[in-house]
Amino acid sequence: MHTYLYTKQPLTYDGRQLSPHWLYRQFDLLGDAIAAFIGPCHVDLSEMVDLEDVKAEAPIYSPLMLHCIAEFFHPDLEMAVYRQRLLIVTAKELLEELSGRRVQQTGDDLYLTRVDGTPGKLSVSIATASPTSTLIHTGFNIETEGTPVPIIGLTELGIDVPAFATELLRRYAAEVQDIWLARCKVRAVRE
Amino acid sequence: MHTYLYTKQPLTYDGRQLSPHWLYRQFDLLGDAIAAFIGPCHVDLSEMVDLEDVKAEAPIYSPLMLHCIAEFFHPDLEMAVYRQRLLIVTAKELLEELSGRRVQQTGDDLYLTRVDGTPGKLSVSIATASPTSTLIHTGFNIETEGTPVPIIGLTELGIDVPAFATELLRRYAAEVQDIWLARCKVRAVRE
Amino acid sequence: MHTYLYTKQPLTYDGRQLSPHWLYRQFDLLGDAIAAFIGPCHVDLSEMVDLEDVKAEAPIYSPLMLHCIAEFFHPDLEMAVYRQRLLIVTAKELLEELSGRRVQQTGDDLYLTRVDGTPGKLSVSIATASPTSTLIHTGFNIETEGTPVPIIGLTELGIDVPAFATELLRRYAAEVQDIWLARCKVRAVRE
Amino acid sequence: MHTYLYTKQPLTYDGRQLSPHWLYRQFDLLGDAIAAFIGPCHVDLSEMVDLEDVKAEAPIYSPLMLHCIAEFFHPDLEMAVYRQRLLIVTAKELLEELSGRRVQQTGDDLYLTRVDGTPGKLSVSIATASPTSTLIHTGFNIETEGTPVPIIGLTELGIDVPAFATELLRRYAAEVQDIWLARCKVRAVRE
Amino acid sequence: MHTYLYTKQPLTYDGRQLSPHWLYRQFDLLGDAIAAFIGPCHVDLSEMVDLEDVKAEAPIYSPLMLHCIAEFFHPDLEMAVYRQRLLIVTAKELLEELSGRRVQQTGDDLYLTRVDGTPGKLSVSIATASPTSTLIHTGFNIETEGTPVPIIGLTELGIDVPAFATELLRRYAAEVQDIWLARCKVRAVRE
Amino acid sequence: MHTYLYTKQPLTYDGRQLSPHWLYRQFDLLGDAIAAFIGPCHVDLSEMVDLEDVKAEAPIYSPLMLHCIAEFFHPDLEMAVYRQRLLIVTAKELLEELSGRRVQQTGDDLYLTRVDGTPGKLSVSIATASPTSTLIHTGFNIETEGTPVPIIGLTELGIDVPAFATELLRRYAAEVQDIWLARCKVRAVRE
Repeated sequence: MHTYLYTKQPLTYDGRQLSPHWLYRQFDLLGDAIAAFIGPCHVDLSEMVDLEDVKAEAPIYSPLMLHCIAEFFHPDLEMAVYRQRLLIVTAKELLEELSGRRVQQTGDDLYLTRVDGTPGKLSVSIATASPTSTLIHTGFNIETEGTPVPIIGLTELGIDVPAFATELLRRYAAEVQDIWLARCKVRAVRE
Repeated sequence: MHTYLYTKQPLTYDGRQLSPHWLYRQFDLLGDAIAAFIGPCHVDLSEMVDLEDVKAEAPIYSPLMLHCIAEFFHPDLEMAVYRQRLLIVTAKELLEELSGRRVQQTGDDLYLTRVDGTPGKLSVSIATASPTSTLIHTGFNIETEGTPVPIIGLTELGIDVPAFATELLRRYAAEVQDIWLARCKVRAVRE
Repeated sequence: MHTYLYTKQPLTYDGRQLSPHWLYRQFDLLGDAIAAFIGPCHVDLSEMVDLEDVKAEAPIYSPLMLHCIAEFFHPDLEMAVYRQRLLIVTAKELLEELSGRRVQQTGDDLYLTRVDGTPGKLSVSIATASPTSTLIHTGFNIETEGTPVPIIGLTELGIDVPAFATELLRRYAAEVQDIWLARCKVRAVRE
Repeated sequence: MHTYLYTKQPLTYDGRQLSPHWLYRQFDLLGDAIAAFIGPCHVDLSEMVDLEDVKAEAPIYSPLMLHCIAEFFHPDLEMAVYRQRLLIVTAKELLEELSGRRVQQTGDDLYLTRVDGTPGKLSVSIATASPTSTLIHTGFNIETEGTPVPIIGLTELGIDVPAFATELLRRYAAEVQDIWLARCKVRAVRE
Repeated sequence: MHTYLYTKQPLTYDGRQLSPHWLYRQFDLLGDAIAAFIGPCHVDLSEMVDLEDVKAEAPIYSPLMLHCIAEFFHPDLEMAVYRQRLLIVTAKELLEELSGRRVQQTGDDLYLTRVDGTPGKLSVSIATASPTSTLIHTGFNIETEGTPVPIIGLTELGIDVPAFATELLRRYAAEVQDIWLARCKVRAVRE
Repeated sequence: MHTYLYTKQPLTYDGRQLSPHWLYRQFDLLGDAIAAFIGPCHVDLSEMVDLEDVKAEAPIYSPLMLHCIAEFFHPDLEMAVYRQRLLIVTAKELLEELSGRRVQQTGDDLYLTRVDGTPGKLSVSIATASPTSTLIHTGFNIETEGTPVPIIGLTELGIDVPAFATELLRRYAAEVQDIWLARCKVRAVRE
């Protein structure tokens, strides 16, 4: 994947950004791509795609987040979840480097324990499919007021958000490309 | 993935174990599965599947390794590389927990820096395809004498190899299953 | 496939049950699964998915049916039709065992001839695709009053519906699993 | 599937007929096709593709069989097993019609109980993959002398083998085609 | 592909014809098929599927066109674009044969230069996906009054439209079939 | 596709170049790529992959050809044939431009009629699959002595071979890329 973009243009994430060709319509990014932007997050139940959250009636709210939207023109939703996990792991590594603190990963969530021992949820994430592509949203909390669960934000960690975003996108695009090339230079085996 | 096995039966890895149905023939594991065993590693150029290594004429040798072999009855080699990376990340996390030391990941390799500042390669790994499946081999050095590149081993890190192996397989199988279920509980989006 | 459920909770089938994740939303069944329940059946033309029936303007009605809904998180609709046919064949076998009478299969329909020589349609069935899965509905008539075509019901055959349903689901899930394992234990051939 | 052929030309089945394009090389059948012929069957372990039989060291022998070879230019081995099961079910139905006796199916095997209560195995079958296609072999015993397990043959059942073969191929090709068309006339559903 | 139909029944193309099973609903064509008809073309922005045109706010209008609609029950949208390009190339060849003039192809567009040196756009085309199939629309201008861009029409070229349509469909169906058979008669290679 | 290479290094084509990763091993081209080189062509029956030619016992020989080898890390052989046809069409267009003469295409072959009315075959081509990719070979005759069928060569047409090769590769790579992007900018349709 060669196409990634961090934009300073603030945008609210309300779930409708997780749709096919949104990156093309919004930013003119064509083909597999990932973009990041900063803005509030509130996703109503009607827009939520994780049915476990829908069943739990747990809408998503955060006053300010760094949002990443990726689109892959590949139909396999299971592979999209692997690609989502790779984004989470890449973010975890970078956050540990930048903050000097240990970040926990559970499935597609990142957590961090404050000095007072209270845990904080750092991110939300989902991967889904459209009729022509697969899509990922990952949001990292920046500010933390008024959220339904205890969260922690990039500000509290002293992270420079634009620098983090730019490096995260760069690394992720390089990893995705590296995995593709690994697939292209291995001979098959047989019985 | 529900099937995983750590066996105390020592086995040499010479590349021929990375073949379709080896887990079924050897251990009677049927369907998607992962197994781990301990043994030397020497893979001749003729058995190597990473063509970059073949071009570099870099055969693989290690006196004693923990080997993991996974087979997925799914044809997509790119997905197999994602599954390989997940195994590497899962091992990295566990090694950091057990050793209290920081492990570096570069693509599908794990590295560790010794107290004297010298780096050591901890693992080798490859993902490939067979006509009926995709396969992963990952080997973690246990002992380190006589290897062609500077490596570091689980013994030097004070890791209990069977305990590490058992927990690694358990976590990996759980992650693979969790990813599958994540794929099954998300609704699609559309334009 | 390991997940199947027969529920005594009566439910009307009006077509909207043939939708992605209905089994998860309704019964908390996650992943490939099949469930069965008893209830009336009336599917309006607007909800029908078999376009041949839509063209014939033949809505579906039955006063009481045993309904099976299966969902597979696999995209291939042709394979879903094979899986539907397997469900029909499995039901046919079981019905013949339980009733001691001969059942005819034509495509995805089951028929039975009454003692007076009049034929009766025993079942309706369809397989379709959603953006994230493939789905099957099969309904077996229990009672037969007021239906648009001559049908025969499980009651007339003296079938214990809950026992039939439970055994049908158990056998079908075992067959689907057996077919998967058959696929995993065969070596490839070449020219 | 429109292409099927019963040939009177006797041919021994030794496993090498289960290979890609054998139908094209032997009979000039191009594309998805099924052919049937009569001949002895002896498959050495080295040619066997069912690894369960290989592990059990159970080579296949029968003095005279009706053999069916089908090839589908579709890569999915799991679907090939469904297509194999459809062939078995179609044969079972036809055998019951022609013999007036009840045939049992267990997985991909057909059995029949003799008047003296002894069971007999009627068929062998396997589905496999090649790099460009998927393939099915099914053999029905005609004569039964000298076989390693108790078997029953079409002769003992009074079946006219060429007539059975011709009708089996015709019905199977029609079923495969009918399943394809069923896939083409159903509208998708969504959440 | 064996199914193609040219109908004299005039029909307006407004974009809604590019939908799954339209060929089945309208003309009773089942399975992979292509049909052609004559009629005006006006597609509002809300019905347009080429997002580049949507972004450019360039609705499509032509007073009279020959329209081709093809549907393939194969999910790969990239392959559908290859199939679309094959249709364009086949049309280009035939137009050159029938008119004795040189036609230019740029991507999925055909152009022709008038005697006075002015260029004219001859066709519009798009390929897209539905949840159960992939679809192609190609329209060839017949008359040219009042269109938003300079176009050229089949009338001006002296083309007999029904004869052109019938031959185009025949050739295209034969090419698609020939490509399928080419895929079925080639042995695989290996390293 | 961004990777293409014309090399002046002469190489004989004997069929073994049509194998997975040959472009990587020979030219260090990684990922989807196409390369062209000049050299004799003689392919023995044992190396031929077109089984129609094998059945006809028609080995391939040409004293000097321009060879193109393309590899796509995509498994679908039918799509590879479409991609092969695109290469043939692109070559046909370019040859007509450069020679000012009309070239005929029949399936995957190009022909040209000499001034004396005798026809000449201009090219050979095949598409095939490997366990990890699909591959294309197309050869254009340069010189024509001693070939088994009447052929015509680029020299006779006055074509500058390196210039033709370079432009052909550039156009083909651009077309393949354009088709991919066309697939990425179209919204799906539904019933």
